[in-house]
Amino acid sequence: SQYECFTPIILMVRRLTVTTILLILASETALCQQFLIPYQAVSDCGVERFFDIGSLSCVACGSNQRASETGSAMSSITKSDNSNGFGCIRCPGIVTDEGTCHCPKGGILGESPAANMIEKFVKFSFRCERCQASFINTSLSCVCGQNNGIMTVYPRTFLCVSYGVCKQVAYPQVFSNLTACQALGNMCVMNMHSLSSVANDACGLFNSIFRSTAALGSTQDIAYWRANLPWLFYGDQPGLASRVLQTDPLTTGFSFKGSNKNIDIKLRAAVYNARGEFLRWDKIGGGYLQLCPDTATRQQAAFYFGTAYQEKLLRVYPEPLFYDVFVDVGGGEDTRLLPLPTLILNQQYNGRFINQGESMKNWYLSRRVFLVDTLSGREKTLSATPKVIRVASSITIRPLVPATQKGQVFTPLMSVSYSDVLITDTNTQTVPVSFAVEYEMDQHETRLKTDTALGVMGGVAVLHSLLKTVSWKRRTLSPNIDMETMLRFLLFYAGDLANVFFIITVGTGLYWLIFYKAQQFVSVLLPLPAQEEQFVTYIGCAFAFKAIQFLHKLIQQLSIDVFFIDWERPRSKATASEPKRDPSPVSIWRTYFVANEWNEIQTIRKISPTFQIMAVLFLLEVVGFSSLALRDPWSTLKRSPEAYTPPYSLTLRYGLAATLWLCVGLLQVIFFTVFHERFVEDKIRQFVDLCSISNVSVLLLSHRCFGYYIHGRSVHGHSDTNMEEMNSNLKREAESLCGQRGLLPNTDTQTFQVSINNHLRAQYDRIREPLSRRNGPSRLVDASSANPFEQSTRAYNTLNRFLGSIIDHANRDIDYIVKDKLLFERVIGMEFLEPGEKSIFYNDEAHSFSDVLFYGNEATLLIFDTLFFCVVDLGAQSFVLAAVLTYIQQMVFRLIRNSFGRRNLASKTLVDQRFLI
Amino acid sequence: SQYECFTPIILMVRRLTVTTILLILASETALCQQFLIPYQAVSDCGVERFFDIGSLSCVACGSNQRASETGSAMSSITKSDNSNGFGCIRCPGIVTDEGTCHCPKGGILGESPAANMIEKFVKFSFRCERCQASFINTSLSCVCGQNNGIMTVYPRTFLCVSYGVCKQVAYPQVFSNLTACQALGNMCVMNMHSLSSVANDACGLFNSIFRSTAALGSTQDIAYWRANLPWLFYGDQPGLASRVLQTDPLTTGFSFKGSNKNIDIKLRAAVYNARGEFLRWDKIGGGYLQLCPDTATRQQAAFYFGTAYQEKLLRVYPEPLFYDVFVDVGGGEDTRLLPLPTLILNQQYNGRFINQGESMKNWYLSRRVFLVDTLSGREKTLSATPKVIRVASSITIRPLVPATQKGQVFTPLMSVSYSDVLITDTNTQTVPVSFAVEYEMDQHETRLKTDTALGVMGGVAVLHSLLKTVSWKRRTLSPNIDMETMLRFLLFYAGDLANVFFIITVGTGLYWLIFYKAQQFVSVLLPLPAQEEQFVTYIGCAFAFKAIQFLHKLIQQLSIDVFFIDWERPRSKATASEPKRDPSPVSIWRTYFVANEWNEIQTIRKISPTFQIMAVLFLLEVVGFSSLALRDPWSTLKRSPEAYTPPYSLTLRYGLAATLWLCVGLLQVIFFTVFHERFVEDKIRQFVDLCSISNVSVLLLSHRCFGYYIHGRSVHGHSDTNMEEMNSNLKREAESLCGQRGLLPNTDTQTFQVSINNHLRAQYDRIREPLSRRNGPSRLVDASSANPFEQSTRAYNTLNRFLGSIIDHANRDIDYIVKDKLLFERVIGMEFLEPGEKSIFYNDEAHSFSDVLFYGNEATLLIFDTLFFCVVDLGAQSFVLAAVLTYIQQMVFRLIRNSFGRRNLASKTLVDQRFLI
Repeated sequence: SQYECFTPIILMVRRLTVTTILLILASETALCQQFLIPYQAVSDCGVERFFDIGSLSCVACGSNQRASETGSAMSSITKSDNSNGFGCIRCPGIVTDEGTCHCPKGGILGESPAANMIEKFVKFSFRCERCQASFINTSLSCVCGQNNGIMTVYPRTFLCVSYGVCKQVAYPQVFSNLTACQALGNMCVMNMHSLSSVANDACGLFNSIFRSTAALGSTQDIAYWRANLPWLFYGDQPGLASRVLQTDPLTTGFSFKGSNKNIDIKLRAAVYNARGEFLRWDKIGGGYLQLCPDTATRQQAAFYFGTAYQEKLLRVYPEPLFYDVFVDVGGGEDTRLLPLPTLILNQQYNGRFINQGESMKNWYLSRRVFLVDTLSGREKTLSATPKVIRVASSITIRPLVPATQKGQVFTPLMSVSYSDVLITDTNTQTVPVSFAVEYEMDQHETRLKTDTALGVMGGVAVLHSLLKTVSWKRRTLSPNIDMETMLRFLLFYAGDLANVFFIITVGTGLYWLIFYKAQQFVSVLLPLPAQEEQFVTYIGCAFAFKAIQFLHKLIQQLSIDVFFIDWERPRSKATASEPKRDPSPVSIWRTYFVANEWNEIQTIRKISPTFQIMAVLFLLEVVGFSSLALRDPWSTLKRSPEAYTPPYSLTLRYGLAATLWLCVGLLQVIFFTVFHERFVEDKIRQFVDLCSISNVSVLLLSHRCFGYYIHGRSVHGHSDTNMEEMNSNLKREAESLCGQRGLLPNTDTQTFQVSINNHLRAQYDRIREPLSRRNGPSRLVDASSANPFEQSTRAYNTLNRFLGSIIDHANRDIDYIVKDKLLFERVIGMEFLEPGEKSIFYNDEAHSFSDVLFYGNEATLLIFDTLFFCVVDLGAQSFVLAAVLTYIQQMVFRLIRNSFGRRNLASKTLVDQRFLI
Repeated sequence: SQYECFTPIILMVRRLTVTTILLILASETALCQQFLIPYQAVSDCGVERFFDIGSLSCVACGSNQRASETGSAMSSITKSDNSNGFGCIRCPGIVTDEGTCHCPKGGILGESPAANMIEKFVKFSFRCERCQASFINTSLSCVCGQNNGIMTVYPRTFLCVSYGVCKQVAYPQVFSNLTACQALGNMCVMNMHSLSSVANDACGLFNSIFRSTAALGSTQDIAYWRANLPWLFYGDQPGLASRVLQTDPLTTGFSFKGSNKNIDIKLRAAVYNARGEFLRWDKIGGGYLQLCPDTATRQQAAFYFGTAYQEKLLRVYPEPLFYDVFVDVGGGEDTRLLPLPTLILNQQYNGRFINQGESMKNWYLSRRVFLVDTLSGREKTLSATPKVIRVASSITIRPLVPATQKGQVFTPLMSVSYSDVLITDTNTQTVPVSFAVEYEMDQHETRLKTDTALGVMGGVAVLHSLLKTVSWKRRTLSPNIDMETMLRFLLFYAGDLANVFFIITVGTGLYWLIFYKAQQFVSVLLPLPAQEEQFVTYIGCAFAFKAIQFLHKLIQQLSIDVFFIDWERPRSKATASEPKRDPSPVSIWRTYFVANEWNEIQTIRKISPTFQIMAVLFLLEVVGFSSLALRDPWSTLKRSPEAYTPPYSLTLRYGLAATLWLCVGLLQVIFFTVFHERFVEDKIRQFVDLCSISNVSVLLLSHRCFGYYIHGRSVHGHSDTNMEEMNSNLKREAESLCGQRGLLPNTDTQTFQVSINNHLRAQYDRIREPLSRRNGPSRLVDASSANPFEQSTRAYNTLNRFLGSIIDHANRDIDYIVKDKLLFERVIGMEFLEPGEKSIFYNDEAHSFSDVLFYGNEATLLIFDTLFFCVVDLGAQSFVLAAVLTYIQQMVFRLIRNSFGRRNLASKTLVDQRFLI
């Protein structure tokens, strides 16, 4: 077990001066190659081969040789050091105060066959050799590195040594040292892969060796990976980065569900220490590459495909290790690895940051990263506390662009950003560090589709709004196109546009919810927060426009004309015997009763709004639907509290909340329409019945010449009677012993839409004048002539008689006809006939008079509530707050509708507000 | 810097056989000593002293000696090994297959001066010496450890060596080896401090050395801590554990707030590795002692005083380290350390678990713990994968019992439980591990206080219930004490007992909330979940009894007697000229209107119940009051999502939810009573006014002979009139041109409590008989004789006239007097006078008729809602669910109250249900 293994290769000597820099070094390599290498563990090499830490593969030993005990070249070197290399060897030059050895001018420290870089950096033997031309070129001195701007002790002392040892890698291996090359490469990595054409920094020295050893050939069939050297850089052809990243999808497909469930992004890393020793192969997962510890489950979440993961962390690992990261693309025995291209954001070329642009074309990819470098910052001795440490403050693995429907993805890119941290107090100082796996998809197509839909539907909305405006014009019978018409058009358009935005946003949200959460193969990825801005703008538009529509409807409802026509006539008519006997007055209490009920149904709705809120809140927060809005592809409702919780996606949150709200609303509407109103209580039907029983009709004018009429004439002639007669009337009607309630004989239709003509409206306005004047300024001319109370009561009586006579066809000038509405008229909500000489009463079994109540505008209210809920939630990310505020909003608008509606009712019908309780 | 330091001490030779065991070893030491040691870091020792790893203190070097470079004895040994000890030394006996050295029978491996335990266990030199008596005694062989039942390679191979080296610790230090003793101690720790009197296990061997070195004396003035040996055991006197744990409080006070904020439990640990080397002093915090990594903030939370911390963790650390844990009790320069006593739950003595009992008296405390032992389980070679590992699966630091009001606490106890885990697959296998800091306080006193309060208040409740029962007896005028009386008493008692439980539980919850969350010094600690059982039971009782009371009241309300007395008389009286002319009937619509309004006010409340839910939910979930229920002493509302979230305390959750609910409820009651009812709308007042305007009185009989009367006789004589007259009537009344509304002339009092006598009740029942019969089974005798409708209408008219005549004093037999109620009568809710010949009408300005509505029972409803909310929350730990269910509960009971109340109203007043809308 003490044998060592060295493959004898042909001795080659090439010397090149460092005149060009690394970035052009691989320009001759073939493009578009698949960078796949086989995975070989140290234990795979057996006894006949040894593990070559340069190529990460097993290499055959020479004849009569066996691999060292553990199979690793590293350990074989360790073994060989037992006999020599320990202890200090005499320095052939001058020993400095810092304990390092300086060669005389013109000489440079070089490797002796007994050199040993393993145990400690201070333990090597010296050999002065002729100074390399490049040093003399740049520093005019061969005290290497002394003047080349690298400040701290580690590179200053060991860079030259590593270089000196490594550059003989082209010689037969017996004289070279693989770890020295690795160590030199690591110094380059610690310098963030930066190089300049002037100074002889680590990367420059590495590059000089890379170029000088071209004859060694490449390893693993990868042109950028020189035999015996670490692979640090990709080539520098223009556009190489995009070819590496986007040409060939990985052969591994990712799927979220089903039997082929494959969600692990399998990463492996070859780990080296600062001395260049290969330590091990590591499967990356859990806390790997993340500086701060977290619970294992949460850390693992970062490596599940599709889980957005971000965590700010605060602690620092002590040990500097270097990672060559690969994606494990083949399962089972024959594992193959794909090198993960790395983008070092701090990488400089001649002091210019070359990787910080957006354009992939200008990127220069590299390999090998470290997490914390506490070594370079140590001044003077290696045991000193570092003055400054360099930390990989941000590691982002992205973008895994879905290429096909089978879950195949392109090569991921690892972006690394390093930060230098000045050490002030190791005990309390913390470093913010982020590790993220970001999944990005090109959302351009989605946006295009959305915009197309918006354009098309926006156009339809214009037509619809125009139609509504025309309908409004007909119903007000105003011929001119004036400012008000324009305003109305805009108001209608706001409503229609709100619907368009609502449909598009809910559709989009639902699309993501379904396709992202339910996909088996990875085919869609959520838009990133930055990509959601447009979506949020659309929601804002939908809400704003819907609010305008809602307020418009509210104001319309608060100013409708309403009048209760009492059909009751005094019983004791002036008979012949007592001509002047006061008839017992008709009791006003039936009108009070009807008005009171009308007041009560103003704000009833087709759903229970509070139950709506509670149900949605229950589903979201208790049942756990809110988990569906998390940025990961799972569709489980209950999450373990220990599991990592990714952030919420605004898109999913909106889609989820809006969908749930609409679904619960729809279910409620169905329940109330199909079950509750049929078997328990239908407030609208009840009101119509009440009108009939109380012998009171209701005329509602929502527009100047359009409105609704509820025919409430009692079939018994009288309703102002005692309990006995009332009960017997009710009983007779139940037994169908009396006529039908309809306006026309032998019909049941009690509710009508009415199109009145200008003449009738003029009469109506004339009679109502004293009533409306009551609210206006008092006028001197008749201040004393009549009590305003009396005046309005007289106007009430006149209007009552006038409207009664019209319904009875008793007024020859003003008559009406009753007809059915055409189906098309119903659909577009417009009347084709203008009322000419006669007004038109349209049969309306559907109780459409509820359009002047909340009841008839459930769709608008439901969508407004939905948007209100969602907008609050998007702003505050709290369903509970959204629920509470939605409740307050509903309460406030209900209060407004109730109190102003009550005031309007009282002023229009003369019923004292005290009876509207 | 290459000097070494050995203090020469007198050579002492003592040999004792291992006949007794360790547990009695320290019986001679003084009791009740304060185990405080000064903290000395390695760097504190300077050049004249070295750091003695046995005593953890600086010990002076001998003359002409300097401490080694880093000051540690360990490093001095390392240094000395550079020249010798590496490489294999010839075994004087037989080398086995496992590479270990066996002495011939009768001999034992011993220490040679060159022995070296440091670098690797296989590297030491051998010396065969005479076999120790104890080995021969037990195994009859000196191939040490071969047959003593320790299964795995580590102890088997090295136990004897460590023992052999360590037992010469009493000789001058030049011949001994401190680390060997530490290593032997660590083996005892790995064996979970267990020992038996039969086998020579690690603890037994340690004990033998401990006893044999009594002459060396103790170190740090702690009797159990032998010089040069690790301190592993406390003594075994009965009750020693409780004296150690509970005698002297720490001098450090903990305070949560203010300028002396001191919340860190400062722990320090001396860390040793398995070879017995002292590694470092560590401040414990963050991930220390916790096997699984978590974010730093969360881990730190465990060490804040008062934060209950528990986390199941899943990963295993690879390195076996040993910790001597201390509490850092003095700040600043002169740090003093208090050893943390450890209770090893798995510790065995002769195979019996001695530390698993509840009683502190039988515990045997020890010192030094490890987290993971991956060493003992390796078979054959140390490089093999262990077959079994031992993990500290549960570490609990407790109880820091508050002793005084200044935040002083007693010595904490660390309980450790080890588990053996059989290794099957290192990659996937996980071990559940818990680390907890539990704060426990003796809750006996609290419980005593609670029970006392319960007893006292329960007694008062009995009296109160008796009073209520007596009142009920008087109001029903039933003289006998029968089953129903008993039942009523129990029902009343349930209500009172519910209040008692509610007061006690809310008081307790509020007490904890205030004193735990607001305390500056640590004086109270939350009851642990196990201690909360009684509390939860009390809440359950409160809820159950309150539910009984609520249902009782609900049923009472659903069966009250109500009658509307219509004062309106027909206008056209039968005049002389037309004696038989049919008078125009009095309209029933005013009664309908009043009944309708009565129906509507049945379920109104003094608060808005939905707003109540929303407001509480808002405060808890959005404002973040729920954070106050967490088991930590912070009173901040917003927690960082990265911070550790301790579990919720049931007590705090209940106290918080109940208090918030009551506060919001109280604020609402104040708002509605002071502002809303005065300036916006008072439904009760409105109803009384309506009665007066509509000329309808209301008689409510809640008991058989007790009830309420609302006098609604119109001051205008007539109310059944047209709008003109109604308006002028209202105007006249507003201008005070007519009489007052009161029952008595020139009074305003319209509402009364009435105590009627048996006579009146009997008459009332007699007249009502046809009405009540309507709901009963139809009877053959009068099935055809009269229409039931007619019958009941007649009964209605009769009752109307009868009650009218009584109120008018027109019935000479049945009269009444009006009087004021005494203040004391009001307070205890009972009338002193029994109605004799005359019924009694008590003036009641307070509208106490609302007692038969939800409105008058706000207290009961509010408390019931509170308890419902809290009980759901305690069960489900979700305020949202509690809110939703409370809403459903309120809705269901409102529905029940409304529909059954409506049915009762219809049946009692003959108003058709169709008018109650």
